[in-house]
Amino acid sequence: MNYRELSLKKHGEWKGKIETVCRVPVGTREDLSVAYTPGVAEPCMAIHDDVEKSFELTRRWNTVPVITDGTAVLGLGDIGPEAGMPVMEGKCALFKAYGGVDAYPLCIKSKDPEEIIKTIKLLSGSFGGINLEDISAPRCFEIETRLKEELDIPVFHDDQHGTAIVVAAAFTNALKLAGKKREEVKVVVNGAGAAGISIGKFLLKLGVKDITMCDKFGIICEGDEGLNRAHEEISHLTNLSRRHGTLADAMKGADVFIGVSAPNVVTPEMVKSMAEKSILFTMANPVPEIAPDLAKGAGAYIVGTGSSQYPNQINNVLVFPGLFRGALDVRASTINDEMMLAAAKGIAEYVGDKLSREYILPYAYDKGAHECVAKAVAEAAVQSGVSKLYK
Amino acid sequence: MNYRELSLKKHGEWKGKIETVCRVPVGTREDLSVAYTPGVAEPCMAIHDDVEKSFELTRRWNTVPVITDGTAVLGLGDIGPEAGMPVMEGKCALFKAYGGVDAYPLCIKSKDPEEIIKTIKLLSGSFGGINLEDISAPRCFEIETRLKEELDIPVFHDDQHGTAIVVAAAFTNALKLAGKKREEVKVVVNGAGAAGISIGKFLLKLGVKDITMCDKFGIICEGDEGLNRAHEEISHLTNLSRRHGTLADAMKGADVFIGVSAPNVVTPEMVKSMAEKSILFTMANPVPEIAPDLAKGAGAYIVGTGSSQYPNQINNVLVFPGLFRGALDVRASTINDEMMLAAAKGIAEYVGDKLSREYILPYAYDKGAHECVAKAVAEAAVQSGVSKLYK
Repeated sequence: MNYRELSLKKHGEWKGKIETVCRVPVGTREDLSVAYTPGVAEPCMAIHDDVEKSFELTRRWNTVPVITDGTAVLGLGDIGPEAGMPVMEGKCALFKAYGGVDAYPLCIKSKDPEEIIKTIKLLSGSFGGINLEDISAPRCFEIETRLKEELDIPVFHDDQHGTAIVVAAAFTNALKLAGKKREEVKVVVNGAGAAGISIGKFLLKLGVKDITMCDKFGIICEGDEGLNRAHEEISHLTNLSRRHGTLADAMKGADVFIGVSAPNVVTPEMVKSMAEKSILFTMANPVPEIAPDLAKGAGAYIVGTGSSQYPNQINNVLVFPGLFRGALDVRASTINDEMMLAAAKGIAEYVGDKLSREYILPYAYDKGAHECVAKAVAEAAVQSGVSKLYK
Repeated sequence: MNYRELSLKKHGEWKGKIETVCRVPVGTREDLSVAYTPGVAEPCMAIHDDVEKSFELTRRWNTVPVITDGTAVLGLGDIGPEAGMPVMEGKCALFKAYGGVDAYPLCIKSKDPEEIIKTIKLLSGSFGGINLEDISAPRCFEIETRLKEELDIPVFHDDQHGTAIVVAAAFTNALKLAGKKREEVKVVVNGAGAAGISIGKFLLKLGVKDITMCDKFGIICEGDEGLNRAHEEISHLTNLSRRHGTLADAMKGADVFIGVSAPNVVTPEMVKSMAEKSILFTMANPVPEIAPDLAKGAGAYIVGTGSSQYPNQINNVLVFPGLFRGALDVRASTINDEMMLAAAKGIAEYVGDKLSREYILPYAYDKGAHECVAKAVAEAAVQSGVSKLYK
């Protein structure tokens, strides 16, 4: 039985990967008088007098919804809100297991950015932070940007930034092994959706200079016709030599290929055309841009994928539990660049002496890695002045 | 330390009365491949092909949000959405402890019925049912009615129907002790908000003929000026002799007084003016319409209150956990009159031989009572043809 068949069977047996439990005694009359009426009136009025007390007297401090509209679920695309729920539940399970965060899966039956923004804003008083998930580009950019502006709790679109952070960590360690400098390498990012755009921007923040973004039509170049707003913005920051051409053209002489695109779009010939000690992160799910064996056979020095089936899994599960743990612990009002860069650095450094071509990132199920991310993010939040608890 | 002080202290220690837990193994690479990617694609696609499968492959089958706008919280009134959260969390804790239901507290930052309806509809794909809570009248009527029409999962406004159901159970047992018939008694309901209106209507369904509704201006009479839609509707069904007057006028000769109004609005003289073997349910929270001792001293035969501090607590916590348990167990598409009447009957009958003037209802923390409600509701759902599992 393969993983997909086994997963379907197990989901049918589990009937839910998370559940809500009661944390307080409610077995006697006295218990009810304290946890419920009449006693509960007092914490209610305390919050009425000072809404910040909702972070002390309810579970709000630790609660994050994982919200999707079901338009960009895994590599499956627009499968609908209910169909996205197994992924959202999975995230919630991982949020708790690795970050101690109480997460709720919520799917929204709308594709209209305004409706999605409105819905989340109306619910925001229930939560300590907001995790957006599997919302298609370019709508996800508008939704996240607006919510970050209009809410004073952390808002994080995992597909964009979770992916960018874990890629940055893998990139940092892979360059270290290859003995290359981030300011000098040529990077190709294939796939210009939510993840690709965010990876491109984040690598620029990390100090990378030479990035070429490609989509299914080839290299994205400033001045191209028909670019959407996100593509136009990234076109000003990348491909500074204004090249045109195919993905194959882009990959000639490149040091690093980062794929968040589609299965089997990279050939062994394209790998052979790259620079010495080439690095490939082929993260298309569930089938990568090129099979790791083929890439290695064609001379790739380091290969990572999105899948747990191969070494060097580059998956944002390494990011979101610790990132929110850290943000919630210091009551960060947002998730800023400093916190995201700290998360990437924390993940990369956690690998330590064990760094090798087959181990550039911690295992997703390594609890120490998540604790390390949480600590780094919390410190960065305090130092950058966005903690509401520690100033 | 009184219950309110103790409750504030305890809420500060608990920092949340519920939490989310992970129900599946996620500790190894293989675990992640099944619970998360790549395996999770298969249950996603199964739901994409048949959305009903979301009730089998995720926690949806057992999940109910407790949703408020914070406009009518306990007896505290419009204290705001965040301030209502300790009550919502309390309900969620009780939902799990007594009904095994996974409940999430959600507060909506809007008082506009259209926005509230829209928000809940957009989220409905995440849930097996919807529990509305502490939304002020008359908006709550519109919101519940519309959602019941437009969704195919159970929608239940607890303040209305939970209260009506538990009052009906108390009423049934109290009449039994007093040796009176429901078709013959004169009933006064004081307070014409969500609970009062619903109690009035539900007692009519139970076969009561003579009901007089009062609000703070006195008896509600057909043709009165300035009645809102809910009051106008109930004015056609009650006070059939078209009396005008005060609450004191209404209570003269009445057999049963049901108060969901305000503290201390009933005097001993008003109790003395009632019929022999008078029954008073004084449910204003936290201070009843008349203290039980005073009422008894003035000749009341049976007294019940909303509080756990006195005998005969009449609280909807006896209803909602079992009601939703039963509805979810048979995948009811709605909560209809048959199910609500079955719940009232189940609660009343559960008291059995122990029935006395000081014990007209089961204790709220008696798990057997909740199981009894669940069973009665599930059977009624199947018999009335609204179960999606058993036809």
